[in-house]
Amino acid sequence: MHISFGACVNEMIVLPCRAVAEPDKDYAVCFAIPVNTKGIKIITSEEAPFRPNDFFDFPINASIFSASGCIVFENVFVPIERVFLKREWQYSANYPYLFADFHRLTADAYKYPELEVMVGLGAILAEYNGLENIPHIREKLARLMMFAEGTEALGKAAVEHCENEPGTNLVYPNAMYSNIAKFFYADNFHQIVKMVQDIGGGLVSGGISEKDFNNPETRPLLEKYFGAKAGIPTEFRLRAMRLARDLLNAWHLAVTIHGEGSLAAQFLAVNALADWDKYKAAAKRAARIQDGSKHPNVQ
Amino acid sequence: MHISFGACVNEMIVLPCRAVAEPDKDYAVCFAIPVNTKGIKIITSEEAPFRPNDFFDFPINASIFSASGCIVFENVFVPIERVFLKREWQYSANYPYLFADFHRLTADAYKYPELEVMVGLGAILAEYNGLENIPHIREKLARLMMFAEGTEALGKAAVEHCENEPGTNLVYPNAMYSNIAKFFYADNFHQIVKMVQDIGGGLVSGGISEKDFNNPETRPLLEKYFGAKAGIPTEFRLRAMRLARDLLNAWHLAVTIHGEGSLAAQFLAVNALADWDKYKAAAKRAARIQDGSKHPNVQ
Amino acid sequence: MHISFGACVNEMIVLPCRAVAEPDKDYAVCFAIPVNTKGIKIITSEEAPFRPNDFFDFPINASIFSASGCIVFENVFVPIERVFLKREWQYSANYPYLFADFHRLTADAYKYPELEVMVGLGAILAEYNGLENIPHIREKLARLMMFAEGTEALGKAAVEHCENEPGTNLVYPNAMYSNIAKFFYADNFHQIVKMVQDIGGGLVSGGISEKDFNNPETRPLLEKYFGAKAGIPTEFRLRAMRLARDLLNAWHLAVTIHGEGSLAAQFLAVNALADWDKYKAAAKRAARIQDGSKHPNVQ
Amino acid sequence: MHISFGACVNEMIVLPCRAVAEPDKDYAVCFAIPVNTKGIKIITSEEAPFRPNDFFDFPINASIFSASGCIVFENVFVPIERVFLKREWQYSANYPYLFADFHRLTADAYKYPELEVMVGLGAILAEYNGLENIPHIREKLARLMMFAEGTEALGKAAVEHCENEPGTNLVYPNAMYSNIAKFFYADNFHQIVKMVQDIGGGLVSGGISEKDFNNPETRPLLEKYFGAKAGIPTEFRLRAMRLARDLLNAWHLAVTIHGEGSLAAQFLAVNALADWDKYKAAAKRAARIQDGSKHPNVQ
Repeated sequence: MHISFGACVNEMIVLPCRAVAEPDKDYAVCFAIPVNTKGIKIITSEEAPFRPNDFFDFPINASIFSASGCIVFENVFVPIERVFLKREWQYSANYPYLFADFHRLTADAYKYPELEVMVGLGAILAEYNGLENIPHIREKLARLMMFAEGTEALGKAAVEHCENEPGTNLVYPNAMYSNIAKFFYADNFHQIVKMVQDIGGGLVSGGISEKDFNNPETRPLLEKYFGAKAGIPTEFRLRAMRLARDLLNAWHLAVTIHGEGSLAAQFLAVNALADWDKYKAAAKRAARIQDGSKHPNVQ
Repeated sequence: MHISFGACVNEMIVLPCRAVAEPDKDYAVCFAIPVNTKGIKIITSEEAPFRPNDFFDFPINASIFSASGCIVFENVFVPIERVFLKREWQYSANYPYLFADFHRLTADAYKYPELEVMVGLGAILAEYNGLENIPHIREKLARLMMFAEGTEALGKAAVEHCENEPGTNLVYPNAMYSNIAKFFYADNFHQIVKMVQDIGGGLVSGGISEKDFNNPETRPLLEKYFGAKAGIPTEFRLRAMRLARDLLNAWHLAVTIHGEGSLAAQFLAVNALADWDKYKAAAKRAARIQDGSKHPNVQ
Repeated sequence: MHISFGACVNEMIVLPCRAVAEPDKDYAVCFAIPVNTKGIKIITSEEAPFRPNDFFDFPINASIFSASGCIVFENVFVPIERVFLKREWQYSANYPYLFADFHRLTADAYKYPELEVMVGLGAILAEYNGLENIPHIREKLARLMMFAEGTEALGKAAVEHCENEPGTNLVYPNAMYSNIAKFFYADNFHQIVKMVQDIGGGLVSGGISEKDFNNPETRPLLEKYFGAKAGIPTEFRLRAMRLARDLLNAWHLAVTIHGEGSLAAQFLAVNALADWDKYKAAAKRAARIQDGSKHPNVQ
Repeated sequence: MHISFGACVNEMIVLPCRAVAEPDKDYAVCFAIPVNTKGIKIITSEEAPFRPNDFFDFPINASIFSASGCIVFENVFVPIERVFLKREWQYSANYPYLFADFHRLTADAYKYPELEVMVGLGAILAEYNGLENIPHIREKLARLMMFAEGTEALGKAAVEHCENEPGTNLVYPNAMYSNIAKFFYADNFHQIVKMVQDIGGGLVSGGISEKDFNNPETRPLLEKYFGAKAGIPTEFRLRAMRLARDLLNAWHLAVTIHGEGSLAAQFLAVNALADWDKYKAAAKRAARIQDGSKHPNVQ
């Protein structure tokens, strides 16, 4: 229905989006197929307008063409050797759950480099504005950086505490930690954006266009009035502002919440995974509630 | 330096941006002048790309051309009858303070209709998605609505508890309340955006373009797969998604923080306005600290 | 079931806790009765241990005995002239709704003086610790103060925009604003507590007891090592710390959320009160959704 | 000055609280000494009133006697074999930094079992109140649980990515991750408390005392009116409420912020540790700012 980069791949893997019950077993299918197979239609949505080569004014959208796609199947033939699940509804739950587990980890994996850019953007805006040592800005930079490194640490924990499928050599990410990693950055992302914009100052709401900067009539005025701190070319400061403007767009914010499953999906997942009896036992022990339950780690 | 809608007005009023001390008295000036006076140059920044007539895909940016401007004066003649302050540095502080007071109230005044749109956007996304009665969505709608109405109430308080300049009939907004009103919505705005996007679902990250919707080949697929709840045309749902995408842009978020003075400016203003002795007296009374201070309202 | 100060009053008014339907009409009763009427039993819960006269160590709990009560009626006779509702279930909804409306306003009314104490406590802790001019502390004080004054402004708005019962001279608080006022401080209260404790430093986790302060053996050590900034007696600093310790207790935090209706009760109330059609009309106008709806304030 | 459990140990280790410069080298000392050495005075502060054996009403404070101490040295003799640093000011910085690193990890280590109790407390309050399946309560339980498990994961990351002192077999916790772990739970702790109290309902502001519960006159009333959901003894519900009341006290909240270094200390630490050049290089690459800097992981 709404697949990020759906129009940008060669092959697609189709799987059930939830556990399928017997009456719906026709939907218990999983297969892989080239995206240009006859009968497949992709209706893309241009997520942010593409701006090829306009690297000064739109440094992100000049670099990335991000088109999600609604993928429609009309009488598509799928060869049997590419079918992994065919009406075996009993096994259908494994597919979305394992997918979600890996997917949330990949989210964490690509988010860390994005967060590096955002931390760095906050840091160069502060530097170019000459405000690196203002206390509230230092505090915001520390918070930004802890979000990035905390995201990285939680993703690592998902890998390093991976789970082993019994009786096999298959491992997959720790589902609890991959969900927490995804939730951690997604639930806080709008605050991260706010801090970057707060550090940047009013100019990150618009910024100056390359055309004005390269116009001989306006260039001297811009050099005079938009100068960065000593030693930093004005150009750097203006580019940083445009990055703030281009990076923190509506698509980016919305996709951070909803990509790889919305926040509500993480609540569902972790509620299913949690060992509630363990937590309850800890509280009962503290409250002297004696119902025979026992925490695994205490006498 | 960075004046919202600076290129969209007929006249501008120029005033000092802070209290001016005697050595800088050449900067203690205030005047009004037509924007097309000889010698005035405005370097605009296109805040969000203008999309004239593209009301389906870009309903906000088809309607509004928002260009802030850096305004440069090069040998501009200002007639004396349009000059309100000319080197009388002793009075210079009144201008930015009174301006800020009114400006923060105007912020509140224009923000309320914007927030009405955002609350309504959350509400129609919930309705069209058929999720109006999901508990966490009802809770988010209630929060959105309280933000809007709280902003309105605080703005009204600034007006209804206005201050009277002694010895005159001049009144101006209650400075404490106008600052709180502005801070209240600006400090929370990114959370408001997050809630709208969370309600809307993944489609608000992109949405479907009018061209695909009006294309006879894709229209039936879109009607089938993007249908809203019974009784609502698919078109309405798609328009709502594009509004979410167009409204919640980087410019909107940044300008909400920085317009009319950044959050730091509100901290400065309210710290200067607050009657700290009153609060301290209340705490000392509670702690039985007897230093002779007295709260005005208690014995 | 759980009535704040239930054991501390002379008379009580009993009313239905919700709208009563016809089958339950025996519960559609409202009356007033002295608390010592035969057959009334009150089982109190000591909300915070009472510490009479111990004003240094427990300045709040030495002053206030706060006992909520579970009130049980066993064959209590209520004279008919004190009965306001007797099985007229059709009118039963008015009682809890009007009560809630006034109750939330009283919450706002008593909360403001409490918040004055909390703002002042933050301010004297900062002053006595010699940290009043540290930027992050100034920012926290500004935030504390805006919470207090915002609460006050919202409460005033509830009164100044009161509603008039048609055909009568009866007015009651603006229900939307009284709910928002209550929600505003209750939803943020734990953050207010955090800021006061953060400003206060580690000593607010315990503090020094009066016995040690008045002990000739330890007094000189305390004067030496716990001295406040120049000009402030050590005693004042120690008293401020004990106030922080005594004021910010579990009862205070829990009752701020749940008193006068929990946060969930405000969501219910404002969802019922909101003019959703107005917000939706604003969003539809912005999105160019033409379903005939109209915002009351725009053409 | 204010040492948690200062009065409850046999030995203490004394170290500089910051890097010591040459003029202050008399303070560049580190040593270990029994707490009952002649000349040591400890002035304790009773952090929460101790309630021995009162396990129903005060389940935490009946179990734990938490006394921080101000420790004063008056002519204390320290044998030379117990002295680790004696005026070698050049090395003084190592002591507080390494201490803080380990200390923040121990904070994480003890906090996880505490958070298990808090998650479990939320869960049993929800269960006993019969509200386990209410959506907003399930969401809050999921959030609580993610805080606990996220804290655990970050602490593990500090250990598993430990740092090796060059040229030795000494390892110590990853300083970035141990700081983030501590900050993560401390910065969010007041919100955790709020969620537990919100789940618990108004009764967690006080609760019922054991004396009333065991009083034959009031017991039947309490069984009738405070009954838990079917199958749960009333006693369990009342004990859970008292745990909420006793656990979430002012000391607990304040010590979570300030123990092992306040939030400001974590900002300082991570600002010093962060590889700012790396983040800046990432942002410069995205913005096409070419100043020769290079991110270590990209071409």
